Amino acid sequence: MTSQPTTETNDAENRAAQTITDDEVFNAHLGGKLSVEATLPLNSKRDLSIAYTPGVAKVSQAIADDPAKVTTHTWAGRMVAVVSDGTSVLGLGNIGAAASLPVMEGKSALFKNFAGLDSIPLVLDTTDVDEIIETLIRLRPSFGAVNLEDISAPRCFELERRLVEELDCPVMHDDQHGTAVVVLAAVHSGIKLTGKKLSDMKAVIVGAGAAGIAVTELLQVAGIGDVIIVDSKGTVHRDRDDLNAIKAEYAARTNKNNIFGNLGDALAGADLIVGVSTGQWSEEDLAKMNDDAMIFALSNPTPEVHPDIAKQYAAVVATGRSDFPNQINNVLAFPGIFRGALDSGAQKITTEMKLAAAQALSDLVGDDLAPDYIVPSPLDERVAPAVAKAVAAVADQ
Amino acid sequence: MTSQPTTETNDAENRAAQTITDDEVFNAHLGGKLSVEATLPLNSKRDLSIAYTPGVAKVSQAIADDPAKVTTHTWAGRMVAVVSDGTSVLGLGNIGAAASLPVMEGKSALFKNFAGLDSIPLVLDTTDVDEIIETLIRLRPSFGAVNLEDISAPRCFELERRLVEELDCPVMHDDQHGTAVVVLAAVHSGIKLTGKKLSDMKAVIVGAGAAGIAVTELLQVAGIGDVIIVDSKGTVHRDRDDLNAIKAEYAARTNKNNIFGNLGDALAGADLIVGVSTGQWSEEDLAKMNDDAMIFALSNPTPEVHPDIAKQYAAVVATGRSDFPNQINNVLAFPGIFRGALDSGAQKITTEMKLAAAQALSDLVGDDLAPDYIVPSPLDERVAPAVAKAVAAVADQ
Repeated sequence: MTSQPTTETNDAENRAAQTITDDEVFNAHLGGKLSVEATLPLNSKRDLSIAYTPGVAKVSQAIADDPAKVTTHTWAGRMVAVVSDGTSVLGLGNIGAAASLPVMEGKSALFKNFAGLDSIPLVLDTTDVDEIIETLIRLRPSFGAVNLEDISAPRCFELERRLVEELDCPVMHDDQHGTAVVVLAAVHSGIKLTGKKLSDMKAVIVGAGAAGIAVTELLQVAGIGDVIIVDSKGTVHRDRDDLNAIKAEYAARTNKNNIFGNLGDALAGADLIVGVSTGQWSEEDLAKMNDDAMIFALSNPTPEVHPDIAKQYAAVVATGRSDFPNQINNVLAFPGIFRGALDSGAQKITTEMKLAAAQALSDLVGDDLAPDYIVPSPLDERVAPAVAKAVAAVADQ
Repeated sequence: MTSQPTTETNDAENRAAQTITDDEVFNAHLGGKLSVEATLPLNSKRDLSIAYTPGVAKVSQAIADDPAKVTTHTWAGRMVAVVSDGTSVLGLGNIGAAASLPVMEGKSALFKNFAGLDSIPLVLDTTDVDEIIETLIRLRPSFGAVNLEDISAPRCFELERRLVEELDCPVMHDDQHGTAVVVLAAVHSGIKLTGKKLSDMKAVIVGAGAAGIAVTELLQVAGIGDVIIVDSKGTVHRDRDDLNAIKAEYAARTNKNNIFGNLGDALAGADLIVGVSTGQWSEEDLAKMNDDAMIFALSNPTPEVHPDIAKQYAAVVATGRSDFPNQINNVLAFPGIFRGALDSGAQKITTEMKLAAAQALSDLVGDDLAPDYIVPSPLDERVAPAVAKAVAAVADQ
């Protein structure tokens, strides 16, 4: 792509969002973005006797006698720890735990705003997977669920897998599964628009990091016929000898025809491309896709292809940006997924719950489905409750 | 003491506090006592662009470039982690981390209510001092100060000492120093009322746990002439061979005349008794104290001697209860101490800061000083600001 068309904005608000100044951002962040408030009054001796001593001793003794009461009589039952080691923060890379804190505060704010869940950022000054796991095991009584965030691949895969095993509460790496759920929701809508069948579809996933692997996994479970992962060296296939463990695992169970080559080779006859890396896609390559293709160019802030260009090669186009139609944004998924998991008392976030979340998101679009409306707006207040309900309905008790 | 007089209540509110039912306490605790709120609006795309992506990336990058900005542009700069392992919770003992959570939530609520500080409870499922230290070192970027709470002696002494060394932020075990500061404040007021001189005074501290050791330490630093610690075996003296390390240390630097024996032996000629253990004191023993003695019977909920009895043997009487005059309650100290430390950017809570806090508390009583008004009420809104100001004024920068 040699020229970048002028950004088209949807409305006045999007134009305003484009003009946010640095001063405005930094002023808004002074003092941080979260506040812990007491939910009981503390204005009289009587108030103190109920919320603190001597009254609180009865509650502590009750929990000591019946540990299940910790979920009903403390905030732990609705508390999500947002955990990061700062190794893969937004597009900034490994900037460290302290520098990741503003992102985690934002995430906690989103949890409260969209799902009514309390949430605290816990940023860890270690990047050792064993130490992160050990730390969260020790902190286990402090929270009810763990949202892993901005943790680099491939460490994030082992970290999440082992935490799911070791903690008796919902654990999810949002960069993986939040993205995967919203992509699958968009695909559900996309096949309604294009008449394609999942089992006949060929998908190309560009990027083999946290999101790329999780998207691949969920699309396969959902029934997509063939998925090819493309990393910086080309297609992930069974004859490559430069693959890390997770890529090797996926080389064995993707890319049916073991296609060698670059993005263009992968895209020949593809129905869907999902970009979760950086870099730009050429029109020449996109032109190799099937008719009525779907192009999800999710890199932020610069999509792999501008949507106006993508539209020439696809029936359905999505990005990660709020100023284009069809924003594929994790905030559509994680608040409702954690809310549903905590509401149902689930100890794990299962694949079934992710599939249900994706279906619920696509269903919300309903009769308004159109090429430029395949997923709800992140500001749609129906989203988190609908996702939570769908997730809770399939939760293991 | 053979008979316990009927509790005298101060006013209608105290009577109401006495009649709190279990149902009322448990209902108030449903869902816990804390809530995390976003301090920025999240209602439009523009809001999201400021508080979350893409705006937040600028703040994260700025912290990566200048780590000091984490204290101004995240909540960590005004965040107190309330940390417990649940080994010494109120009068309930070692009931575990989960059961301690309601107390820690209450503490966090008090931090916000009295000092405007954000605070999160972190309860740890380990009682190993090394592991607790290691965990807090890893979590260091998440908070700005550590309030240790309800951690058993003598482990609490090593834990606090090492954390103060290893963390570059204020750390204080409130059961130790919060109590000590308020006791010293009461002593300051007591000597004004009785005309005693600190250097001439002999104090007996009953209890050699967290509070007893810290009270001893602070009273010595403040200049009290002689302090004798009494534990369950009698006076702590240099010829005992059953002392743990911390008691042995204090045996060497208390009890000037190396007095052997029981509480009665210690009290002969004493000017002050401070009870921070359990058990009851006999009138026969209290009668051995000097004229114009001070009796601080701080056990909760049952003071070591009822104040009406104590008054027969002392000029000044205090308890830990809200329904008697002169309540010696940590909440007078910790909110202001942490607020002053964080406001001043101090990396440690020094002895000088504790002395300043005690003086400020006593000074607040001012001209209203009387035998039944030696410390301000915990609900007095002037307290935390006055303590914070005094603490900040002597803080090392």
